[in-house]
Amino acid sequence: MLRTLTADLPSRIGQRVVIQGWVHRRRRLGGVSFLIIRDRSGLAQVVFTKAEQGPHLNALTEETVVSVDGVVAARAQAPGGVELISPELTALSAPAATPPLQLWRPTLDTGLPALLDHAPTMWRHRTRQAIWQLAAASMRGFRQVLDAQGFTEIHTPKLVGGATESGANLFTVDYFGRPAYLAHSPQLYKQIMVGVFERVYETGPVFRAEPHDTTRHLAEYVSLDVELGFIKDHRDVLAVLRDVLAGMLAEIRATAGQQAGLLDVRLPEVPDRIPVIHFREALRLVGADPDAADLAPEHERRLGAWAHEHHRSDFLAVEGYPACKRPFYTHPQPDDPSCTNSFDLLFRGLELVTGGQRRHDYRDYRRALAERGEPVEPYAGYLQAFRHGMPAHGGFAIGLERWTAQLVQVDNIREVTLFPRDRHRLTP
Amino acid sequence: MLRTLTADLPSRIGQRVVIQGWVHRRRRLGGVSFLIIRDRSGLAQVVFTKAEQGPHLNALTEETVVSVDGVVAARAQAPGGVELISPELTALSAPAATPPLQLWRPTLDTGLPALLDHAPTMWRHRTRQAIWQLAAASMRGFRQVLDAQGFTEIHTPKLVGGATESGANLFTVDYFGRPAYLAHSPQLYKQIMVGVFERVYETGPVFRAEPHDTTRHLAEYVSLDVELGFIKDHRDVLAVLRDVLAGMLAEIRATAGQQAGLLDVRLPEVPDRIPVIHFREALRLVGADPDAADLAPEHERRLGAWAHEHHRSDFLAVEGYPACKRPFYTHPQPDDPSCTNSFDLLFRGLELVTGGQRRHDYRDYRRALAERGEPVEPYAGYLQAFRHGMPAHGGFAIGLERWTAQLVQVDNIREVTLFPRDRHRLTP
Repeated sequence: MLRTLTADLPSRIGQRVVIQGWVHRRRRLGGVSFLIIRDRSGLAQVVFTKAEQGPHLNALTEETVVSVDGVVAARAQAPGGVELISPELTALSAPAATPPLQLWRPTLDTGLPALLDHAPTMWRHRTRQAIWQLAAASMRGFRQVLDAQGFTEIHTPKLVGGATESGANLFTVDYFGRPAYLAHSPQLYKQIMVGVFERVYETGPVFRAEPHDTTRHLAEYVSLDVELGFIKDHRDVLAVLRDVLAGMLAEIRATAGQQAGLLDVRLPEVPDRIPVIHFREALRLVGADPDAADLAPEHERRLGAWAHEHHRSDFLAVEGYPACKRPFYTHPQPDDPSCTNSFDLLFRGLELVTGGQRRHDYRDYRRALAERGEPVEPYAGYLQAFRHGMPAHGGFAIGLERWTAQLVQVDNIREVTLFPRDRHRLTP
Repeated sequence: MLRTLTADLPSRIGQRVVIQGWVHRRRRLGGVSFLIIRDRSGLAQVVFTKAEQGPHLNALTEETVVSVDGVVAARAQAPGGVELISPELTALSAPAATPPLQLWRPTLDTGLPALLDHAPTMWRHRTRQAIWQLAAASMRGFRQVLDAQGFTEIHTPKLVGGATESGANLFTVDYFGRPAYLAHSPQLYKQIMVGVFERVYETGPVFRAEPHDTTRHLAEYVSLDVELGFIKDHRDVLAVLRDVLAGMLAEIRATAGQQAGLLDVRLPEVPDRIPVIHFREALRLVGADPDAADLAPEHERRLGAWAHEHHRSDFLAVEGYPACKRPFYTHPQPDDPSCTNSFDLLFRGLELVTGGQRRHDYRDYRRALAERGEPVEPYAGYLQAFRHGMPAHGGFAIGLERWTAQLVQVDNIREVTLFPRDRHRLTP
């Protein structure tokens, strides 16, 4: 008989079905035994009367994989309002070792190290599953919006030859006896590909040899990268970012609303236009040093509160960041070249996305590199694109784990990363 | 005025529009100048009479980025049956340097090194664009099928601690002063995640320190990975692979049929059931040594021809590969443990996919590792999943570039890779 998912049982009342999954929990009440089975769609209760192979159950430790053949009966108190009666059970795995934590409890009460050390088992907990399902739905929404807007998916190399973009925080690889580096971002390649397809995106790993331990940095994370040509300036980039965020949230609502509910996540509304404030104005607003070159976390928090109060928005874009704090490819602000056509997007007062317009003139690139005292040679492939004609363009990158962390409101980004990597952790 | 894509011009006859793109080609015929503009959607012809800023055109080298404001007029001989008249042109970039090859010619007549050295520009050629668009459509189809079948997308770490899965061909990374490795595949992690979501997929880079130069191997490529639980055996995995391939081709037909036509690609039909032959039977059929542990490329070609002749199929699965040639996690064939429940999928006589059923019993893993003389410690995280209950499961991996290469029938996989990496090439 074909397997039925537990979520489909309510439509099968009175029928004999087969369900398969993990033993989530065992309970005995008087002469009756209850088995809760977990599959990818949810939970189902199986009831064994005394006559029905009661002894068997002792060997059915939690997480053992089983197949149960039984009849679906209505039962208001059971998950989904149904249960399986007259069951016949077959074990599909050997009895499972007892998990380090009781996965059937509503919450996982444990510290971060235990959560990460036992990640292969801990991700089976329903709250952990729900976290990643929000991430997966977000990626789906990201691609749906961009596919519909004429973007082409690309995959660019993670092994790079020169210390391009930034020499800092790069991992070195022994590449057939010579050094190579793990790409910091697909930045240079996605710009090149604007010359080919105008609008491109990539979802993939990026690598940062982060020397310090923080709750918001990882040595490897998933970057959702976008780049598009034929823009007027960074505001056009922000408009696409707005659509992407709205699409990510729409897909969560459509396919992972239950998971968001389980985690008590308040899904933000994305305004039709994300409010924008200039960097200088932002400094003034929070009473910071007017010559400051960056916003402190405390400033970002206050700006988030301000956006919420004045614009009823969880999102705020800060534009016009000082040129000295932005990479060489950042396009200057036309009326004030000490500022840039770049932005940070704050989500509930925390930086979530960096984006902006890039330079597109070949001579500007040569000049910008010269001004920074950087040689041109390592950028030869990149500069090729500009020599041969590039439109005004820009883009942004969303860190998937940072997005999920802020959505779920956890303190440490490692909690929402499948198998986090930092300077101390390389396993599991 | 909002930009109109060149592909939309036929519906705008008689209207004034703005198009933007690259100067694809310039021509002069008597007193009239023609400019072909290329954007992401195609080509459009612009006509300048002698009176209309003829001199300007000399500076408009090919690949210069321009904006043209003009009136759409029907013209049977022009691309799309329309052209722009009464044009006003604005350059959006400085005059572009002349590309190393004439991108407007129908074919790129050049050797592989030039193609790769100038990749940032060469990908702008319509045949190159078309190749990648087939790849992008394939990824879209891959995800659509799996999303519809209840799979969850995952992203697993590329930086790994132990020399897991296989010590050979691994790149070593300097990881904060100690060695780490670039993951050979997401194999161990996708199996772990079957314990969480039952059905998972990942699209991402994998790394192979391939010591030899061949036309079919890269140091980095995009792997389309799938893994699913609650299977009977590898035939269930093959059934999902069948659906995935059909979905990839359906998406190409739906969204990149024109590109397939431009490249003269014959898109294969995927039979409802992919024909299967046992490894031993395959050896017999091609007259190979009955004790051979692998199929030679010549054998695969002959099997491909046989499948075409006897099953009218471009695809053939060879199952039952010898255990000595498969990794430790491969599930043995129940009635003959010298063989395995694994398969290779041949596409037109070339190996495209490797897949199969994996072991799922914790004790089997410990035994398999012991028999190979491998320590258990580096696999601690992996084995955790099996200790705590895992269903029968299996999966497969499709190499994106290999798929595209065989679809387009090119000799060298580098031709279909955006920025290929091999022992000699790390740029651009």
